[in-house]
Amino acid sequence: MESDVRWYSRRFPTIFVSGSGALLTDIAGRSYIDFFSGAGALNYGHNPPALKKALIDYIERDGIAHSLDMRTSARQEFISAFTNKILRPRNMRFRCVFTGPTGTDAIETALKLARKVTGRSNVAAFTNAYHGTSLGSLAGTASLDKRRSAGISLENVDRYPYDGYLGAEQNTIPLIAKLLSDPGSGFVPPAAFIVETVQSEGGLSVAKQAWLHDLADLARKVGSLLIIDDIQAGCGRTGKFFSFESQGIEPDIICLSKSISGFGLPMSLVLIRPEIDIWEPGEISGTFRGNNHAFVTATAATDYWTDRDFLDRVERNIEIIDDWLENVAESLPQAMFTKKGVGLIRGLHTGVSDLPKTICDYAFQAGLLVETSGAASCAIKLLPPLCMDSAQLSDGLMILSEVVRRSLS
Amino acid sequence: MESDVRWYSRRFPTIFVSGSGALLTDIAGRSYIDFFSGAGALNYGHNPPALKKALIDYIERDGIAHSLDMRTSARQEFISAFTNKILRPRNMRFRCVFTGPTGTDAIETALKLARKVTGRSNVAAFTNAYHGTSLGSLAGTASLDKRRSAGISLENVDRYPYDGYLGAEQNTIPLIAKLLSDPGSGFVPPAAFIVETVQSEGGLSVAKQAWLHDLADLARKVGSLLIIDDIQAGCGRTGKFFSFESQGIEPDIICLSKSISGFGLPMSLVLIRPEIDIWEPGEISGTFRGNNHAFVTATAATDYWTDRDFLDRVERNIEIIDDWLENVAESLPQAMFTKKGVGLIRGLHTGVSDLPKTICDYAFQAGLLVETSGAASCAIKLLPPLCMDSAQLSDGLMILSEVVRRSLS
Amino acid sequence: MESDVRWYSRRFPTIFVSGSGALLTDIAGRSYIDFFSGAGALNYGHNPPALKKALIDYIERDGIAHSLDMRTSARQEFISAFTNKILRPRNMRFRCVFTGPTGTDAIETALKLARKVTGRSNVAAFTNAYHGTSLGSLAGTASLDKRRSAGISLENVDRYPYDGYLGAEQNTIPLIAKLLSDPGSGFVPPAAFIVETVQSEGGLSVAKQAWLHDLADLARKVGSLLIIDDIQAGCGRTGKFFSFESQGIEPDIICLSKSISGFGLPMSLVLIRPEIDIWEPGEISGTFRGNNHAFVTATAATDYWTDRDFLDRVERNIEIIDDWLENVAESLPQAMFTKKGVGLIRGLHTGVSDLPKTICDYAFQAGLLVETSGAASCAIKLLPPLCMDSAQLSDGLMILSEVVRRSLS
Amino acid sequence: MESDVRWYSRRFPTIFVSGSGALLTDIAGRSYIDFFSGAGALNYGHNPPALKKALIDYIERDGIAHSLDMRTSARQEFISAFTNKILRPRNMRFRCVFTGPTGTDAIETALKLARKVTGRSNVAAFTNAYHGTSLGSLAGTASLDKRRSAGISLENVDRYPYDGYLGAEQNTIPLIAKLLSDPGSGFVPPAAFIVETVQSEGGLSVAKQAWLHDLADLARKVGSLLIIDDIQAGCGRTGKFFSFESQGIEPDIICLSKSISGFGLPMSLVLIRPEIDIWEPGEISGTFRGNNHAFVTATAATDYWTDRDFLDRVERNIEIIDDWLENVAESLPQAMFTKKGVGLIRGLHTGVSDLPKTICDYAFQAGLLVETSGAASCAIKLLPPLCMDSAQLSDGLMILSEVVRRSLS
Repeated sequence: MESDVRWYSRRFPTIFVSGSGALLTDIAGRSYIDFFSGAGALNYGHNPPALKKALIDYIERDGIAHSLDMRTSARQEFISAFTNKILRPRNMRFRCVFTGPTGTDAIETALKLARKVTGRSNVAAFTNAYHGTSLGSLAGTASLDKRRSAGISLENVDRYPYDGYLGAEQNTIPLIAKLLSDPGSGFVPPAAFIVETVQSEGGLSVAKQAWLHDLADLARKVGSLLIIDDIQAGCGRTGKFFSFESQGIEPDIICLSKSISGFGLPMSLVLIRPEIDIWEPGEISGTFRGNNHAFVTATAATDYWTDRDFLDRVERNIEIIDDWLENVAESLPQAMFTKKGVGLIRGLHTGVSDLPKTICDYAFQAGLLVETSGAASCAIKLLPPLCMDSAQLSDGLMILSEVVRRSLS
Repeated sequence: MESDVRWYSRRFPTIFVSGSGALLTDIAGRSYIDFFSGAGALNYGHNPPALKKALIDYIERDGIAHSLDMRTSARQEFISAFTNKILRPRNMRFRCVFTGPTGTDAIETALKLARKVTGRSNVAAFTNAYHGTSLGSLAGTASLDKRRSAGISLENVDRYPYDGYLGAEQNTIPLIAKLLSDPGSGFVPPAAFIVETVQSEGGLSVAKQAWLHDLADLARKVGSLLIIDDIQAGCGRTGKFFSFESQGIEPDIICLSKSISGFGLPMSLVLIRPEIDIWEPGEISGTFRGNNHAFVTATAATDYWTDRDFLDRVERNIEIIDDWLENVAESLPQAMFTKKGVGLIRGLHTGVSDLPKTICDYAFQAGLLVETSGAASCAIKLLPPLCMDSAQLSDGLMILSEVVRRSLS
Repeated sequence: MESDVRWYSRRFPTIFVSGSGALLTDIAGRSYIDFFSGAGALNYGHNPPALKKALIDYIERDGIAHSLDMRTSARQEFISAFTNKILRPRNMRFRCVFTGPTGTDAIETALKLARKVTGRSNVAAFTNAYHGTSLGSLAGTASLDKRRSAGISLENVDRYPYDGYLGAEQNTIPLIAKLLSDPGSGFVPPAAFIVETVQSEGGLSVAKQAWLHDLADLARKVGSLLIIDDIQAGCGRTGKFFSFESQGIEPDIICLSKSISGFGLPMSLVLIRPEIDIWEPGEISGTFRGNNHAFVTATAATDYWTDRDFLDRVERNIEIIDDWLENVAESLPQAMFTKKGVGLIRGLHTGVSDLPKTICDYAFQAGLLVETSGAASCAIKLLPPLCMDSAQLSDGLMILSEVVRRSLS
Repeated sequence: MESDVRWYSRRFPTIFVSGSGALLTDIAGRSYIDFFSGAGALNYGHNPPALKKALIDYIERDGIAHSLDMRTSARQEFISAFTNKILRPRNMRFRCVFTGPTGTDAIETALKLARKVTGRSNVAAFTNAYHGTSLGSLAGTASLDKRRSAGISLENVDRYPYDGYLGAEQNTIPLIAKLLSDPGSGFVPPAAFIVETVQSEGGLSVAKQAWLHDLADLARKVGSLLIIDDIQAGCGRTGKFFSFESQGIEPDIICLSKSISGFGLPMSLVLIRPEIDIWEPGEISGTFRGNNHAFVTATAATDYWTDRDFLDRVERNIEIIDDWLENVAESLPQAMFTKKGVGLIRGLHTGVSDLPKTICDYAFQAGLLVETSGAASCAIKLLPPLCMDSAQLSDGLMILSEVVRRSLS
């Protein structure tokens, strides 16, 4: 009764029943270690107890579930917690825009604002970018298969090479700068540059700090906004709340979604510099921009970022996974592995075709959920819950080592 | 700390704390009768007890909250319940597509499929249509203000006059048929006709049964799919589960969202005829297409549609509201009211400019939430919970009568 | 050695050698009466003596053939003659823009200017319009076959029903006005309305004076420019120099080409109101905008319009052709003929399919060149030289009468 | 009475009266040496005697001036002469397509055919390309000022770096190849690559033979057509009839215009490989695709290419101009001159801003017509008649040397 378009139900052919922390249980009672985390929507694991409790309490006292963008106590508390616990400690002055609850809604909103602020029609996106699949966002997405699904031409986006795309040594920003300053190039400054600091769907490439600086400088120079798409890399995935927070750049717009609710509930948040908040009331709308259940869990999730114990565990897990990647890449030269990613959005790129898919299939059989990355699926991607028990993380990686070896034999 | 783009928090300037049935309570302890129902996302009222219980149970036993499109028990149970309680009794054979959880995600998906199935790039949409605000859907939306927000040209949509747009006597389908059969008209058959049976945002116009028939015939004749956007008018709003179910037409694609979860949780459902299910696995994706909390409440909500008591109450409420509209329109000729809508998606169009906005403001002061409709806000729209207590409905309408009178004086 | 795309060389399968007045002679020495006039590019017939003499003189004294838009004596003389003999006597204040020498170049230029003047992106064109085949003009052209040749979506044009398209009684302007004033229609005021007063390629429909007035009023009211595409209907084809000159409307831009050189040489002329001449120097360019041979013959051609004898002959010819059409339509009811067109751009629409093509084929065999009109080729089109000898015109029509009868038998 | 958009009439502020060979005479009787040649439309100089005679003869005997694409003796003779004297000796098998008579018409036609043959919507064009200004061609043109004139987004063209754009050492084809083979790049193989071998308007850059080879190989590999825009560089401008004829590449489509008529008359010619001639009759149309005067002179012009004396003179002139460029560049280091171009489409790029414009102004005062090139006008461009008297060429260059020196002081 379900369309052939379904995907993960084929990838992981069982019926899951419950989840707790890093563990999923299926209908046959079998457990799986989850290194996929809902494609980054479950950074704190399944049903984190504090959030679960807050949510049940809220529902029990008939808290409002749905409110469009009316003010509710849940909404006001989230704004307050997010401001005080996330933005202020980082010296960030941003206003919150609540859009439809998906990442693609957030991107659509960011692009609309950039076009309105600058009066320009084109935005600049990068090779291997992923920004969503509604048509506005899809125009920014680079993957051929995704773009084809549009059925029409996707326009008003200029595509530029991401950091490293032309080789490790070549900084691509001077090339872009040349194109934008040459009246004969055929290119003009865009409304905005939209960029992921880590290309989560696009093969786990990471933009170097110097490149991001050059990009931010170029954007300022040519009058373009800088939009960070932190939907998959944000909310702690790189080890910090924002993926770019230690990089010294100041974006104009930040898009968050996926793990912003902390519980896997649909929610998006677009942060904008107050100076560009030039909207008319109601200009951006959407039925589910007030998912109050998500506000409740998102409020509780902000507590993690002042919890020393949580932060230490994340650090430890980053080290564990980094050591493992190093080890595997070195000990299995036949796999032609390259370490990819950063923090807890990590992976291995391989020159052996079909290997990542094989690894994922075997891993599932061995009770471990992992996914591939890249338009040609040439990397495996590891997205364990940030704060999972370190011993459990090591167990998962040990299983994965086995699986990789088996896949190569 | 919130962007100036916020809307309903200005419209209804208080902080809401809890909701139950047709009543909302704000932070000062004041109650409001809700004739807005989250713009149609709360057809069963706030926190309907059976759904609330099912959801709390699910969360308490660590049911999976987020699952992309992996199979989960919650997902399978929803598919089963929806098939058995909604589709089968109506002799409808459709496959379920779970898209991102917003209405606009559903529309984007429907349009992509129509373009893929037909190999045509343009879709046909109608005057005063509302289909969402991500760029693919927004191209279908007619409202000038919404379209402007795109910042770029919205293309690949042909716009045709809705039923009644050229006057009550003129059936617009023969005009469209002429344009599509004339090789010199400049128009070609579209990938699909996308239509709302009731234009909920577009002034509450209702398509007549004969017009819908003619439209369905024309679509078949010119090889176009017929997409019913039942996002606001579906899930019982017109008195039947599907807005078109007594009209004798057979759409190729049906888009549902808003009240499909029954609880106000973000969820969408695209129903497609099995014959056009030509997708490759994974061609349509999105992080939140597996909002399991919504599946749980949506499953519980299917029970309403076999509950005689519920159905009777809906019938009764439809009569009450219809009588009231008749009465008000007749007794206040100076308001130049016309009865609009059908079932429990009703309203009054007025020739007196600014009157609807005044009514909404006074209603809020009187403890009643209502909203306007139409690009020029020339109608008031009533969307009470379907099964609200009939006495309470009458109370609400009495308040509204007072408010209308006061607004006219 | 020539591409399969060639058209008239199939339609008229011989090799033509010379032409004089209304007569063409082929390689076998056979004569043809020309009722096609180069699709309206030879309004004064082939090689009109005064123009021929002026051209030979010019070439013999090494007059400049090509000059981009440099000033030449030939160019200055044309501007002066056109101003003094055509514009001034009609109280028209316009500036001349010389674009590339084809009609489509003129239209591209007019649309660019309209977009620049208004800052709007869309232009409005009509059902059955023909404005050329380069992509900017082609977007305005309605014919399906022509549009298909683009290979891509043609955008930024809104299509509205031409006068009479919805039936003889329905004025289509109020419908357009409604769409443009309704913020929920999905339509916005265009940069310009571009219109042919006679749809020469589109079936020979003629816009009524009242409709043109209403259109001009609407354009002014919604801030759109009015562009008259007088490429085929202008330069005397309707009996007056400008097709609209007795209609009391004041366009902002007029596009001329085809017969403007008077000799069949490539030339275009865009006339613009001085108030909208906001171009930067060089903003519009093109290699052949200075075809001086064409300026020379065009200058000589302006003399016709102060020549009483010429004007009388045109009047007489109009009467002859009008009588003939009346006669044929009445005497051959089985052909279901309707008289079309005006002046000397005339024809018969028929309800009998394929009849026009048969007539054209038989006519060629009988020594007469005529062409069909309309996207479905359901009319025959008569474009005799304006000032051809009236007896010769009658001879041609007699042949055509014969041919029509034979085609029907 | 002429629009402010006029350009060369400002650049060269006089009224020209006659022209012969390389000399123009103005209304005051002053002579000018013409190193501009109608932007390449007068490669054989003004009023070349043999062509002039053929044209006068043709007109005197009432040869057909205008014929749409009917067959005429003039047309057939041109096809025959062009085939026998130009194509056959070069072993080229191509079919002739006669489009509207401007270069932009030829490009529009080439792009339509490429899209039809491949079923792809995007074409690839290069930085600093110039392909015309009607919207289809303009999308391929790179210059910012030209593109702005469109008033709308120009889509369906991908822009890639021309040879040398990323520095002399970096071959840009491998970069393009990478983008086209990477499913995550966001780029897909185009319908065609359209390229000028010399960027006549774009700063006189010349594509190296190896680069053209790599481009042709890439096009074949990814299923794209190769279109050579030889409108300005063809018809002998580089010293050979086709600019690419000694380069060993085999284009699918060649666009000619400007000097194809040999007399400055409007004419275009699109050559297509017979295998891709998949058009329906009449799919491409246009009023002036049968400018028979141009066929007559174009036929006469083919004789040059079997005339040893003509060819020798061209060779000699190429040497003279090359020596001069070398000399000037070396002797005036303060001008930071770089030699540009090839054959007799030559120039000097300068690092001194505004210098080219100053040179052109002074040259006009000294009786010499030259023009600048490049989006930022940073080169002077020399386009003398191919076969001008060598002594006269040297005289002109001597004047120019003076002018350059004066401009620098």
